Amino acid sequence: MLLTKLQIEQHNEALLKQHQRNFEFVSGCIPNADALIKKLIDFQVAIPSWALGNGGTRFGRFAGKGEPSTLEQKLEDVGLLHQLNRSSGAISLHIPWDIPKDAGALKQLAAQLDLKFDAMNSNTFQDQPGQQLSYKFGSLQHVDKAVRQQAIDHNIEVIKYGKELGAESLTVWLADGSCFPGQLNFRKAFNNTLDSLGIIYDALPDNWKMFVEYKAYEPNFYSTTVGDWGQSYLFASKLGDKAYTLVDLGHHLPNANIEQIVALLLNEKKLGGFHFNDSKYGDDDLTVGSIKPYQLFLIFKELVEGMDARGMDHTKDLGWMIDASHNVKDPLEDLLQSVEAIKIAYAQALLVDPKKLEAAQQNNDVVLAQELLQGAYRTDVRPLLAAARLKAGAALDPIGLYRQLKVREQLVKERGEHAVATGL
Amino acid sequence: MLLTKLQIEQHNEALLKQHQRNFEFVSGCIPNADALIKKLIDFQVAIPSWALGNGGTRFGRFAGKGEPSTLEQKLEDVGLLHQLNRSSGAISLHIPWDIPKDAGALKQLAAQLDLKFDAMNSNTFQDQPGQQLSYKFGSLQHVDKAVRQQAIDHNIEVIKYGKELGAESLTVWLADGSCFPGQLNFRKAFNNTLDSLGIIYDALPDNWKMFVEYKAYEPNFYSTTVGDWGQSYLFASKLGDKAYTLVDLGHHLPNANIEQIVALLLNEKKLGGFHFNDSKYGDDDLTVGSIKPYQLFLIFKELVEGMDARGMDHTKDLGWMIDASHNVKDPLEDLLQSVEAIKIAYAQALLVDPKKLEAAQQNNDVVLAQELLQGAYRTDVRPLLAAARLKAGAALDPIGLYRQLKVREQLVKERGEHAVATGL
Amino acid sequence: MLLTKLQIEQHNEALLKQHQRNFEFVSGCIPNADALIKKLIDFQVAIPSWALGNGGTRFGRFAGKGEPSTLEQKLEDVGLLHQLNRSSGAISLHIPWDIPKDAGALKQLAAQLDLKFDAMNSNTFQDQPGQQLSYKFGSLQHVDKAVRQQAIDHNIEVIKYGKELGAESLTVWLADGSCFPGQLNFRKAFNNTLDSLGIIYDALPDNWKMFVEYKAYEPNFYSTTVGDWGQSYLFASKLGDKAYTLVDLGHHLPNANIEQIVALLLNEKKLGGFHFNDSKYGDDDLTVGSIKPYQLFLIFKELVEGMDARGMDHTKDLGWMIDASHNVKDPLEDLLQSVEAIKIAYAQALLVDPKKLEAAQQNNDVVLAQELLQGAYRTDVRPLLAAARLKAGAALDPIGLYRQLKVREQLVKERGEHAVATGL
Amino acid sequence: MLLTKLQIEQHNEALLKQHQRNFEFVSGCIPNADALIKKLIDFQVAIPSWALGNGGTRFGRFAGKGEPSTLEQKLEDVGLLHQLNRSSGAISLHIPWDIPKDAGALKQLAAQLDLKFDAMNSNTFQDQPGQQLSYKFGSLQHVDKAVRQQAIDHNIEVIKYGKELGAESLTVWLADGSCFPGQLNFRKAFNNTLDSLGIIYDALPDNWKMFVEYKAYEPNFYSTTVGDWGQSYLFASKLGDKAYTLVDLGHHLPNANIEQIVALLLNEKKLGGFHFNDSKYGDDDLTVGSIKPYQLFLIFKELVEGMDARGMDHTKDLGWMIDASHNVKDPLEDLLQSVEAIKIAYAQALLVDPKKLEAAQQNNDVVLAQELLQGAYRTDVRPLLAAARLKAGAALDPIGLYRQLKVREQLVKERGEHAVATGL
Repeated sequence: MLLTKLQIEQHNEALLKQHQRNFEFVSGCIPNADALIKKLIDFQVAIPSWALGNGGTRFGRFAGKGEPSTLEQKLEDVGLLHQLNRSSGAISLHIPWDIPKDAGALKQLAAQLDLKFDAMNSNTFQDQPGQQLSYKFGSLQHVDKAVRQQAIDHNIEVIKYGKELGAESLTVWLADGSCFPGQLNFRKAFNNTLDSLGIIYDALPDNWKMFVEYKAYEPNFYSTTVGDWGQSYLFASKLGDKAYTLVDLGHHLPNANIEQIVALLLNEKKLGGFHFNDSKYGDDDLTVGSIKPYQLFLIFKELVEGMDARGMDHTKDLGWMIDASHNVKDPLEDLLQSVEAIKIAYAQALLVDPKKLEAAQQNNDVVLAQELLQGAYRTDVRPLLAAARLKAGAALDPIGLYRQLKVREQLVKERGEHAVATGL
Repeated sequence: MLLTKLQIEQHNEALLKQHQRNFEFVSGCIPNADALIKKLIDFQVAIPSWALGNGGTRFGRFAGKGEPSTLEQKLEDVGLLHQLNRSSGAISLHIPWDIPKDAGALKQLAAQLDLKFDAMNSNTFQDQPGQQLSYKFGSLQHVDKAVRQQAIDHNIEVIKYGKELGAESLTVWLADGSCFPGQLNFRKAFNNTLDSLGIIYDALPDNWKMFVEYKAYEPNFYSTTVGDWGQSYLFASKLGDKAYTLVDLGHHLPNANIEQIVALLLNEKKLGGFHFNDSKYGDDDLTVGSIKPYQLFLIFKELVEGMDARGMDHTKDLGWMIDASHNVKDPLEDLLQSVEAIKIAYAQALLVDPKKLEAAQQNNDVVLAQELLQGAYRTDVRPLLAAARLKAGAALDPIGLYRQLKVREQLVKERGEHAVATGL
Repeated sequence: MLLTKLQIEQHNEALLKQHQRNFEFVSGCIPNADALIKKLIDFQVAIPSWALGNGGTRFGRFAGKGEPSTLEQKLEDVGLLHQLNRSSGAISLHIPWDIPKDAGALKQLAAQLDLKFDAMNSNTFQDQPGQQLSYKFGSLQHVDKAVRQQAIDHNIEVIKYGKELGAESLTVWLADGSCFPGQLNFRKAFNNTLDSLGIIYDALPDNWKMFVEYKAYEPNFYSTTVGDWGQSYLFASKLGDKAYTLVDLGHHLPNANIEQIVALLLNEKKLGGFHFNDSKYGDDDLTVGSIKPYQLFLIFKELVEGMDARGMDHTKDLGWMIDASHNVKDPLEDLLQSVEAIKIAYAQALLVDPKKLEAAQQNNDVVLAQELLQGAYRTDVRPLLAAARLKAGAALDPIGLYRQLKVREQLVKERGEHAVATGL
Repeated sequence: MLLTKLQIEQHNEALLKQHQRNFEFVSGCIPNADALIKKLIDFQVAIPSWALGNGGTRFGRFAGKGEPSTLEQKLEDVGLLHQLNRSSGAISLHIPWDIPKDAGALKQLAAQLDLKFDAMNSNTFQDQPGQQLSYKFGSLQHVDKAVRQQAIDHNIEVIKYGKELGAESLTVWLADGSCFPGQLNFRKAFNNTLDSLGIIYDALPDNWKMFVEYKAYEPNFYSTTVGDWGQSYLFASKLGDKAYTLVDLGHHLPNANIEQIVALLLNEKKLGGFHFNDSKYGDDDLTVGSIKPYQLFLIFKELVEGMDARGMDHTKDLGWMIDASHNVKDPLEDLLQSVEAIKIAYAQALLVDPKKLEAAQQNNDVVLAQELLQGAYRTDVRPLLAAARLKAGAALDPIGLYRQLKVREQLVKERGEHAVATGL
């Protein structure tokens, strides 16, 4: 199901007057509204194919309705999101859940929907039906070379699919680790993993990046072999220039200072990209910005400052992806909320005056430095986002329009109540 | 599959000499070996029916082999454990996974295996096929009275099954809570839950206990309606004398002092029982004693001291249950390790000299108090456990015998490779 | 040093035009600007006397300048804050750091400065010069009755001072606890503390409240005898109707859901008041709102909703106090930032539409509930606070005026560079 | 005060029979008692000079008695410990608290006491009286080059003192970081610190090591510039072969897997040494082994396995130091407990059969791997430690002898009740 241009225009017209009042006020408060809106229009966040259906926990899953059950339907869902906000112009696929049968047709569909193929994701944390060897005790780290080879082959196959579709990066998230003291020789697990990653790295096309994702715990509950940014950095730096660290906001120990990690990885030229979500306890995979929006802002503040310091392109030089689970919400509404929260944080970060902040830091004027950050954060930037959407042809109120048009009801009609997406 | 008395005897005979050397040494180091062994023999830990198969995480489950697929087979597995260690003389059932079809026959089987029926567990955290209303947004807390009533009815049905089997307690673990700020009115959720529990409480036979379990988070990742001991205490004290708090070792925020909670609940006469397991990060449900054995000892130290202070019976006045998940181990071996760890902690706690400790505390002699605790903890009490097993007719080395007799292989032959137990 | 009315007026005049533009916009976005501003004017936050100087850590303290070294100077500092924001109309004293020598004169000074005397704070966590018995091993919990009596007497003395000054509440924060397993008998410590508190409670005037503050850890690093809200609730409910729980935002285990605790305590009629601050790791005592502003908003959302549900008066029925430490900032500037952050959260909470939220909750419309909360939170309410200040005769930009008038430099001149306030 | 050989011999004689019974039993249970005892005799743990007096918290300090107030007295205290356990044959000094006035005399005293000078510690986390520039906003990270230079000069001075005494390593622990978002430019702070460390590194003698200690938080409560092992590793690897990471057990975020960090640092040849202590919440600096003894064992298991894999000398190739605070215990007794706990963990780690463990790991036999670790850990190795002490001329029961001889009372007599050691 897709929207018509007219549907969007009618929606916007009804809200336009109010929007203009808001926009005029806010744009009058900031020095560079036009440039900022340009950046907001360009900033795109990739949607993961596995987030289009309801997720669950080990205790069960409460199904949604009208979920996309084919790869084509997943693209259509992302296309719909992108129509609504013009900020979701990419999809991140997951193999084996999203094996393309006809890459050409798929690329054509993506082009129609104005979508790009973002990072490809491999899966060696589950056993698939018919799989020869089990990943119960790990994949790239496994004590058995044959298991490692199977996992390596899988990753190389994922690269192959990605090449067919025009993707340019591979995200390797490993569940590898151990559940009990003694289960693993940490050094051997590390070195096996490094060797395995090295073979995959060698299969990477020249224009590709490899993202080495880290995670503190879960599904292994004693150790994880790529457990923190330090380990990911070690892998990435040993592998070579195409290997980078990927930061998932939920993959840290309690109270970690993620924004500092981001700044240091940028400093070391090893930050590759992001998996956005939010969390209170662990890898809760909640809607971005729903729990700790100020932390999200602080991360973006480091991103903007650090990328600008190295002359990086905000839109292309890092991978921006969502990785969340939708246990109690309509996944499409949840994703609209997440993209909005990301772009709010980005807009607020752009409002921080770098010169004034630098001066405050140079003077150790901690109070002023805080005022500058809070001043940007407390600004209501929603009219700026709305203006960017309006200019890009999206809806002023994406969730409002989604509800008004009863999109989910339409999808249920098209796909049936019990259509279930692949994923967790 | 059950063991013969001869198999156990032969096994013990081979190990007897070594055991005697060990036992003579240790029993010579402590004042009251006989009394202690008597207590060890009497101390029984209930096995949950859902822990006899492999557990998984939201990322997947790696199946075991030869799991029990009927309730009878589950009893047999526990019967087997009990033969091996004579310390697992009870099973804790879970409805709807373990609905007894013929209660009489089941009781007979249990009697043959020398097993009791421990606490009954209800399940309102999942939707069952054919269930009318969904628990997606909670059960006893639900904004919709009809959903609450459905959950109440389920709990009353669980009591009915329990009565038929001779159980005497109901464990209510609620996943109820919320994933996002704003989702729930905390007060209404609390008060709805209290009302619902009240109706269930009223249906409780006079000789029954209700255990109100608390958990900090998961599967809800923002709030849990029975989220900590304070909330459980509030419910239990408002409900009445038959209502108690149940402590699951994995259900706390990081760094919680569980032993202090235990001591206070005993002081308030509101401690009901335990779900034993171990964890490093969250509700990891690892083998008991595999991560923080000293904490386990400290908890038992409080239990022994607090129960003795109130003249309670160690074996009957609290509920002792395991609640763990077996992602990478044979569940039966894992349970043998868990029961062993529990009894080691119990034995060590019994070695603490209460008079000397009290004197050290009275003198604020912190060094001596620590020496007394560590002195007990550092004692190798395994020969005492072995002596208790020997005297009770169990195996000196339960895991050793289990492996020697290739029990799992036998179970696979009997039940097939792909037999899967109900559970998570 | 105090400001003149003229100084404030001149400052406001210069900012007025810009303020009016901002205010007109925001007040046009919300339904009830006038009523809201009235509430903001009435909302007062007490300043603790010990927060007027620089704090330190166990690793050292970096002194500030021109700190108040007499009780009179402390009142003057708070009076100055109150002039700047008309929101700090109370001071919370700490005995023995603030023993009033001439209560009458002090009350007169307070009246001149338009200040009230908020909760009195006792101190049994340190030994004072000449003190007979040591609190090294606790105070109200101590194994030695004589130590307990000394601590009881001290608290009763604090009440006496408070009565002279017209205060109406006593905050009891106990460092009591233990550093090592075995050091303490938890039950006896609890019961001793209860007995001791009972005697103090009996000495409380009828119109007074007793606030029982809890804290998870520090300065004791194994157990704390009033360690969490559950323990505080137990004490408060056993003591009687005048005893309440006091919540300090930094006194929890990692990831605690403080807003839920607040809601439950309100539900149980046992919430007494707050110590505001912010933290990332533990009891970091940072500026309010500097780390987790959304959590602060969620807490205020519960406060507003819960107080309204019980018909409570926002300004009087709970105690609002700051408790922070100023290691790297000018304390007065830091306090201005804290008060601002508190009132921003309060204003945002007042913007949440209770009817719409209730409806969303009733429909389990989690997405809408989140939109409602975030809609309020994302609103830039600073112009509303400024309008309230303007109306109350305070400065439109308190920190701006403080800096413009070089207040700290004046204080240094008056008091000397090395004047040091009592405190930590 | 020093002990006489006779005092020790008489003490041992009284305990000998009991010891022999214990020792015969344990040595009969393990394959290699003699070799193990040899290793235990050789294993020495350095005592920090600042741990010989009572520590405190930001809330206050409860003084002990008879603390050493001169550097000579500190050496004597360590000498006394070393007499008691023959395992504390080194002292770690801290500048400016321990500036040697007469290095020659001090070396002579150390030689008499059979003590070595372990790592030298610099201090740029406090301002000293008369210090020109303040470290309030950092030292080696500071925005002001002059402050950085002052801190560099101080470190170079510390090296100079160390050279005079025959020390061979410098521990750099930096409190540098920030308390509030915005205070610091993370990249500049990192790069300034790297530059500063580089200059100090260049001043290091060829045979010296530099230990770069990391800490997650405190005394800065938002960010720390050497905040985790990853950052320390970055510094150490950029500095050169003489720079290493130092692990303090209390310097991590909650739930960190420290043993894995240790294994990886060994793998990367960047582990330099340890600061031993224990903790429940943060950097609690409690007695080693008093909270998480199994974690300590797991760390030593990695140390033994990892050092052996690289052919390292257990006694010399890593730095073993205690860093604890003694708030409620006699510091000397506390240190005896800490050294005992360290050596118990070391002995248990030596009991793990590496071949069997490797085989279990190779077979993914998680149950057996756990049994092997727990088998070693549950062994009561205290008689082995006692045997090592006996052989080395130390006391069978160090704390017992310390108390029997009323050492503290003697020290109070010699030094006075109110003698206070320098330190925190």
